[in-house]
Amino acid sequence: MSKFWSPFVKDLVPYVPGEQPKLSKLVKLNTNENPYGPSPKAIAAMQAEVNDDLRLYPDPNGDRLKQAVADYYGVQTSQVFVGNGSDEVLAHAFHGLFQHDAPLLFPDISYSFYPVYCGLYGIEQQQVPLDEQFQIRVEDYARPNGGIIFPNPNAPTGCLLPLEAIERLLQGSPDSVVLVDEAYIDFGGQTAIALVDKYPNLLVTQTLSKSRSLAGLRVGIAVGHPDLIEALERIKNSFNSYPLDRMAIAGAAAAFEDRAYFEKTCQQVIESREVVVAGLQGLGFEVLPSAANFVFARHPDKDAATLAAGLREQGVIVRHFKQQRIAQFLRITIGTPEQNQALLDALQGL
Amino acid sequence: MSKFWSPFVKDLVPYVPGEQPKLSKLVKLNTNENPYGPSPKAIAAMQAEVNDDLRLYPDPNGDRLKQAVADYYGVQTSQVFVGNGSDEVLAHAFHGLFQHDAPLLFPDISYSFYPVYCGLYGIEQQQVPLDEQFQIRVEDYARPNGGIIFPNPNAPTGCLLPLEAIERLLQGSPDSVVLVDEAYIDFGGQTAIALVDKYPNLLVTQTLSKSRSLAGLRVGIAVGHPDLIEALERIKNSFNSYPLDRMAIAGAAAAFEDRAYFEKTCQQVIESREVVVAGLQGLGFEVLPSAANFVFARHPDKDAATLAAGLREQGVIVRHFKQQRIAQFLRITIGTPEQNQALLDALQGL
Repeated sequence: MSKFWSPFVKDLVPYVPGEQPKLSKLVKLNTNENPYGPSPKAIAAMQAEVNDDLRLYPDPNGDRLKQAVADYYGVQTSQVFVGNGSDEVLAHAFHGLFQHDAPLLFPDISYSFYPVYCGLYGIEQQQVPLDEQFQIRVEDYARPNGGIIFPNPNAPTGCLLPLEAIERLLQGSPDSVVLVDEAYIDFGGQTAIALVDKYPNLLVTQTLSKSRSLAGLRVGIAVGHPDLIEALERIKNSFNSYPLDRMAIAGAAAAFEDRAYFEKTCQQVIESREVVVAGLQGLGFEVLPSAANFVFARHPDKDAATLAAGLREQGVIVRHFKQQRIAQFLRITIGTPEQNQALLDALQGL
Repeated sequence: MSKFWSPFVKDLVPYVPGEQPKLSKLVKLNTNENPYGPSPKAIAAMQAEVNDDLRLYPDPNGDRLKQAVADYYGVQTSQVFVGNGSDEVLAHAFHGLFQHDAPLLFPDISYSFYPVYCGLYGIEQQQVPLDEQFQIRVEDYARPNGGIIFPNPNAPTGCLLPLEAIERLLQGSPDSVVLVDEAYIDFGGQTAIALVDKYPNLLVTQTLSKSRSLAGLRVGIAVGHPDLIEALERIKNSFNSYPLDRMAIAGAAAAFEDRAYFEKTCQQVIESREVVVAGLQGLGFEVLPSAANFVFARHPDKDAATLAAGLREQGVIVRHFKQQRIAQFLRITIGTPEQNQALLDALQGL
C-alpha cells in the first residue's frame, strides 16, 4: 500500500473476472458469452459509425438507445438508463441507491461483484443463504434492509425466481429498492420490467453481453421508475458525461430493434442447453434447473477442481469458484452444438 | 428527491457538458473537438474489430493499448492506466487518491468537473485563485493539502504552466499526489510524463478526445508511478472489469502508433490557432496566450453572452461559462480554416 492512496483502497478486494485467454483454439465456456455473433443489423450499424465523425463526442444521453429500449419494452425513455456495461450500471445503482443505514441484502451464492461494490462504496451487507436446493426463499428477506439485489436467473446457479415471488419481495420491502439483475433473463425467464409501473421501488438491470451477443461492446441498461433513473443519471453525470461511444449507442440500439434474430439465437441456446443437461445427467452429474445460458453442475464422485483442470488440459475452459457451498460445482456456458459435444466428450474421459 | 436515493445524491451538482446539437450544419466550436478526423490507421483498426468476435468480452486490461502508450512515451506498462475517457480516469483518481484529511487544491478557474468529483466522493476542496493574468501561481499551493490537480494547459483559459513550475509544485507537496490533467498538452506544451520516473507523487492524465480526434470513442489514459497506477486498477476492478470495448482498445492503440498523422494534424491546429488569435485581436478582442486547441477571449466593449447568442443565430456555437471572473470570456475551439473564417466573419457583424 502507498501513502498516496485513499485509505479505503488498501482494503478493496477487486472482482476477478473469468479468464480471457489470448489463445483462440480453446473451447471457451467460462464467461457465459453467446456462441452466436451479434445481429447482422447491429454489425452494420456499428460499421456505419466508424468514420471521421468519431472526432466528435457521442450523444451524452444515448437517446437513440434509450428509445430502442423503451420501444422494445413498452416503457417511457424516462424509465430507461444506459451505461458502459451492466457492471457500470450496477456500480452506479449501489452508489446512488444502496447507501443507507440498514444493510443491503443479497443471496450468499450470487454474483460475486456485489460484495465488491459494497467495499467500494462503504455499504453494509448481509448475505442471505439460499435454501438447500440453492433457491431464494422470499421470507428470508423480510427484515430491515437498505435494499435487496439478486440476479434472476441467479448466477452462478442458473435458478429462476418467478415473478409472483418477486412481487412478494417488492411488497415486503416497500421502502427499499429491489434490484433485479437480469443478465440472463432472456434464456428462459420473464422480465420483471413488466412490474415497473406497479412498483416504484423496482429497478431492473440487463446487459447486452449475453443474449444480445455484444460482450465486446460494453452496454448495459436499467429500467425503473423515473425517480430511480434520476439517481442513476445524477451519478453518471457526476462521473462521466459520455459513457457510451458512438458504436456502442448505434450497435446496441440496432440489437434491440432486431427482435427476430434475437429470438432465434436465444431459442438455439435454450435448445442446446437441454442437450447439455441431458448429456451431463447421462454422465452422472447433478444439474441445477437452469433458465440461463449456462448450467451449474456437480458430480457425486468427482472433484470439481480436478474436473476443471482435466477439461483445461483438453482445451475446454469452464468456471470453477473456490467458494464454500459451491466448491464442488462447475459453471459451464452453453456453446455451439460442436462446443457442447466437445465438452461432453472431454468429460467422458475424466 | 426520492426516499430511495443514497442521501448524498440530493446534493450532487452534476457536470454539464457542452451541447451536442443534433443538427449537422452548425459550425461547432463549443467542445474542443479536433477539426480533423482520426488517423486512417485507427479507423482501419476499429473496422477490423466490427465482427462476430464482439460476442466475446474484450481484454479486461487493454494490454494492447497499454503497450502502445508505453512505447510512445518510453515508460513501462505498469506505469500506464487506461479508461473509458479521461473523465472516468479522473473519477477513479479522485476516488482512489484524493480522499484524505486535508483538502484537495485546484485553481478557481479550471475544469468544472473537479468540484463535481469532490461532491461525488465527499472530498474537501479548496479553490486557489489564478493570478490577475489568469495564471497558476505555484507559491499559492504551498499549504497543507490532500492532493493538487490542474489542467495543463489550463481549461478554459488555455494557459500553459512550464515543466519547471510543475517540478516546484511536486517538490512542494511530496506527500500528496499532484495530478496534471493534460487533455490539451499536444497543442503546444511539453508533457509532464517526462517527470514520472523522478516524482512518485506525479500522475499525468491524457485523453484521446482532442489531439487524437477520437472524442466519439471514449478513451483516456494515466501515466505515473506503479503504486499510483495500482490504486486506479483496484478501483477499476472494483467498478467495471471491462471499461474499454474492442474497438476502443484497437483504435486507441493504432492512434498512438500513427505518430506522423498525429503530428501533422496537431501542427495544422496550431497554425490555425495563430490565424484565429490574429483575427480576434484584429476585431479588438483580448486573447489569453493559448497552448490548447481553443482560445479564451473577451472584448472590452461587447458582452460575452450577447456575442455567444449572436454567433448562435448565425450557426456558430462557442462556449460561454456563467461563472464569476470569466463571464465576459468566450471559449472558442479551433476549427478547420473554413470554420475559423466563418467564426471571424460572424463576429465582424456583432
